[in-house]
Order: sequence, then structure tokens, then C-alpha cells
Amino acid sequence: MDDPSEIARRTAAAMERADAAARGAGIRLVDVGPGTAAVALTVAEQHLNGHGICHGGYVFLLADAALAYASNSHGVSAVASGADIAFLRPGALGDELVATAVERVLAGRSGLYDVTVRAGDAVIAEFRGRTRQVPGLAAPG
Amino acid sequence: MDDPSEIARRTAAAMERADAAARGAGIRLVDVGPGTAAVALTVAEQHLNGHGICHGGYVFLLADAALAYASNSHGVSAVASGADIAFLRPGALGDELVATAVERVLAGRSGLYDVTVRAGDAVIAEFRGRTRQVPGLAAPG
Amino acid sequence: MDDPSEIARRTAAAMERADAAARGAGIRLVDVGPGTAAVALTVAEQHLNGHGICHGGYVFLLADAALAYASNSHGVSAVASGADIAFLRPGALGDELVATAVERVLAGRSGLYDVTVRAGDAVIAEFRGRTRQVPGLAAPG
Amino acid sequence: MDDPSEIARRTAAAMERADAAARGAGIRLVDVGPGTAAVALTVAEQHLNGHGICHGGYVFLLADAALAYASNSHGVSAVASGADIAFLRPGALGDELVATAVERVLAGRSGLYDVTVRAGDAVIAEFRGRTRQVPGLAAPG
Repeated sequence: MDDPSEIARRTAAAMERADAAARGAGIRLVDVGPGTAAVALTVAEQHLNGHGICHGGYVFLLADAALAYASNSHGVSAVASGADIAFLRPGALGDELVATAVERVLAGRSGLYDVTVRAGDAVIAEFRGRTRQVPGLAAPG
Repeated sequence: MDDPSEIARRTAAAMERADAAARGAGIRLVDVGPGTAAVALTVAEQHLNGHGICHGGYVFLLADAALAYASNSHGVSAVASGADIAFLRPGALGDELVATAVERVLAGRSGLYDVTVRAGDAVIAEFRGRTRQVPGLAAPG
Repeated sequence: MDDPSEIARRTAAAMERADAAARGAGIRLVDVGPGTAAVALTVAEQHLNGHGICHGGYVFLLADAALAYASNSHGVSAVASGADIAFLRPGALGDELVATAVERVLAGRSGLYDVTVRAGDAVIAEFRGRTRQVPGLAAPG
Repeated sequence: MDDPSEIARRTAAAMERADAAARGAGIRLVDVGPGTAAVALTVAEQHLNGHGICHGGYVFLLADAALAYASNSHGVSAVASGADIAFLRPGALGDELVATAVERVLAGRSGLYDVTVRAGDAVIAEFRGRTRQVPGLAAPG
């Protein structure tokens, strides 16, 4: 019950059920562990902007979903206080985008997470999220 | 034809027609001018995360849409190279979120835009976007 | 005694006396008020990098000093949790750089401040600082 | 002559001689390689702010120096267009701060570098720098 990997999986499963926004955007949970997570999105017509490429907002949303799973993986509720994203290459219709989050530092209740969004081997975006644990907050779901 | 306000309006109208992602997310163009734009989103069930509040990804997408209109308003195509967002207050179901973009600096082809997302008078998020003009890029739409 | 402008001035004066780093770097306090501050630096040989222009680190240090004065101006100790800076133009030997800080939002104990660094009318850098009030912390000096 | 490690070392040596700002701030080059660098600073009285801890501006300057060595290590001039820093723990008088830069992505002429500043094992700050290669720019020094 106290196994960190098991805590990460149970928390993520509850979050996945409760997160209508991520589900409606087409985001799927791929993997989760203590301080890490991977999520995926297949770029569809609904994600395209006027240039015919994946809207940066959906690239961010995907990275933000990875951040949410990774930062809540320890079983203590955490919320994002902010993030920076660098857009490096466009995502095309049909691309399978995978966002991988890694905990860089957790100092007290403040965390920093690096999230890389890739299409195959190509890096689409680099994201760094800032989180704060909120022990009093009810777990998602 | 060369009136800056008219160029901003025509460019925005073309972008709005072409941007399936922003439209599908429920984002509406409210106002646009040279270097400025305002867009709105009414928080619906589709935007809620597991905490029952507006997903940060949709708050970002709204701010990013304002950035796109403002940075393309001069009639030269511009793309976002990155952005930073600070999440200050949650957005609730039914809230009317309005994102207002202002051009802070345009130095050569590089631009910085400040976008504030509000629900009424309350500031939900502060976003700063980095753009680069790409004269060779076809206009959206 | 409770006049906000007077509180800002007294706090800044105490900070200026105590801040060996800013003084040694050549930074001078120009103006301060509730939520605002201006500081200046004349670019000297000691500030030049290998390209013969003002080192970005000193441009940041100047902006950070403005942030410190502005965020502590309410008479409650505040510390920077982070900042983003965009370098727009180089600062040259002999330039008088002025950094002006404005409080963008103060939500609970968390603040955001915009700092613009100029040489005359030219914008050298745009900085956005994130702060947190720490009421238990002794005032600087 | 074309060995990447040798190019990195020669470029760094020329930069070190030319960079009066970093030298005057007390920054020492520790190590450099293709896309990486480590620099160090011993916190002295000249670096202390009014709280008696290392001024955030000098923590940034140290990280920025690591960024400069790492981003110029390929023998093509590169300049910083911006950076974000998160301050996690204070640096104390006498601390030996070491900043380690790692190239995260180099896409065309745009680079992203992660720089971690540590005192022993404790992480003092996390920095992410954005660079742009400028082939026409004369090498530092």
C-alpha cells in the first residue's frame, strides 16, 4: 500500500477518471511512477490552428497533463503555479505526441518538473513547470 | 487598405475562420487592434480538470490565442517561440474568462506580449509570450 | 508613519545601506514608491563581457535590485522565488541603464513584477520577477 | 584541431581571458566540453545582499557564465536571448557555488541549456537559458 510506484499508479488512475478536460482533448496516460509520467496525444483536426499545425495551446495542455500526473504522484495534492514552454518544431496532423515529465527538484513543498514533448525522436517543445504541494487539498477525483 | 486597425481586423478575421483548435475549444475573438487583442472563453464541463476547476491548459490556450491575434495584427506572419504563464487563481465553471494581449516590445522581428486572463476583475493568470515574425510564412487561413 | 510612500522610502533606505552586493556592482537607488522602484547603473569596464558589451548577469542584477525594492516596499519582507529575463539589445560602455519595476499583481503573498531596463529610450531587457512575502523574515538591514 | 573537446577548451580559454565581468565577480572556469560547462564562485562579502545571503543577481551571473561557455563551446558564437531562474535555497557566506550547464536541445540556431547551481549537494537554483547562434559575430576575445 505504501509502495511509491503503487501510490503513483492509484493517484493517476483517480486523476484520469476525473479529468474531463484532458480526456476531451484526446490525452491518454501512458506511464506514471514516483515523480515521473508520460502522456500521449494523436494530433487530429480538432488540434490544428490556422497554419495547419498543432495549436501551441494543445502542446502546452499535453505537457501540463504530464506535469499534473508527475507532481501528484507522491500521493500529496500539488498544483501548478506556473510554467515556461519553448516551442521548437511544429506538430503535424497524425503525429503521435508524447510528453515525458521528470521531477527535477522538490524542495520543501515547491517542485520543478522538466517535460519534453516529442514526435518520434524530434523534440517539439520543452516545458518547465513550477508546482506547490497543497496537503489540505482533496485529491483529484 | 493600409490603415493599421483595418489590417488587424482583416488578419484576425482570416485567422478566426482557419483556427479549428481555438474554435473547438470555445474561444471567441472579442477585439483586435494594432498589437492588441482580446479573446473570451466561457468555462464549461469540457474545460474542467479533476479538481473541478478550469484546466490550466485551457487557460494557456486562451492566452495563446490572444497572443496569436496580437502578434499577427501588423499583417506580417508571426509565430510563438515560447511563453511563460503564472497561474494566480482558479477559473470556475460558468466563469467568463477574458484574455487581453498587449504588445510590450517589438525589436526587429522579435516580440514580447503581455497577456492577462481575468474573470471579471479577478486576475486568473499572467502570461508573457515570445514571438518571431516570419515574413515568408503564408498568412493563416 | 503609516503613509505607504513613507514606508516604501524607509524600507528602501534600510535595504540600500545593507546591500553590499548591489552597491559593489555600482547600482544606485533612484526612486521608490508603493509597489514601484527605479534603480540605475552606469556601464563600466567591470561590467563588460568578452564581446565588449554589458554582461547579461549585470543587466539581471540591476533588474533584480529594482524587484527587491518594489516587492519590499509595502513594509513586509518579500523574497524572489524566480524570474524570467529577455535580452533585447546590448548595453554599451558608458550607457546609463535604468531599471523600472512595477507591481503587476499581488495575490495573497505571491507577487509578480514587471521590470524594464532601458538605456535612454531603447529597451535593453524585459524582466518578470516572482516573489513571495515572508512576514516572519527580518527586514533587510 | 577539429576535435570537439579541443574546440570547446580553446573557445573557453579565449572567453575567460576576455570576460572582465565574470572575472571581477569572482567566477572561475572549472570544466568545459561540447555543449557543457562548469563554473564556480566562492560567496564573499561582495556578493551578500541585505539579508546576509548571496544576492540572486550573482547566482544568475554564475549560471549565465556557465551558459555562455556551454553555448559557445561548438566554436560558433552564440548569445543569450533570455533565461528563467528559480531560486530554491539561499547561498551563504563562504559557500562554494558550482553551476553546471548541459545542452538540452540545439534546433537550428536556437539552443536551450539547463544550468543547476549547487552548494555541495544542495540545489541553490535551477536556470534555463535560451540562446541563438550568430555565425557572423566575432568570437569573444
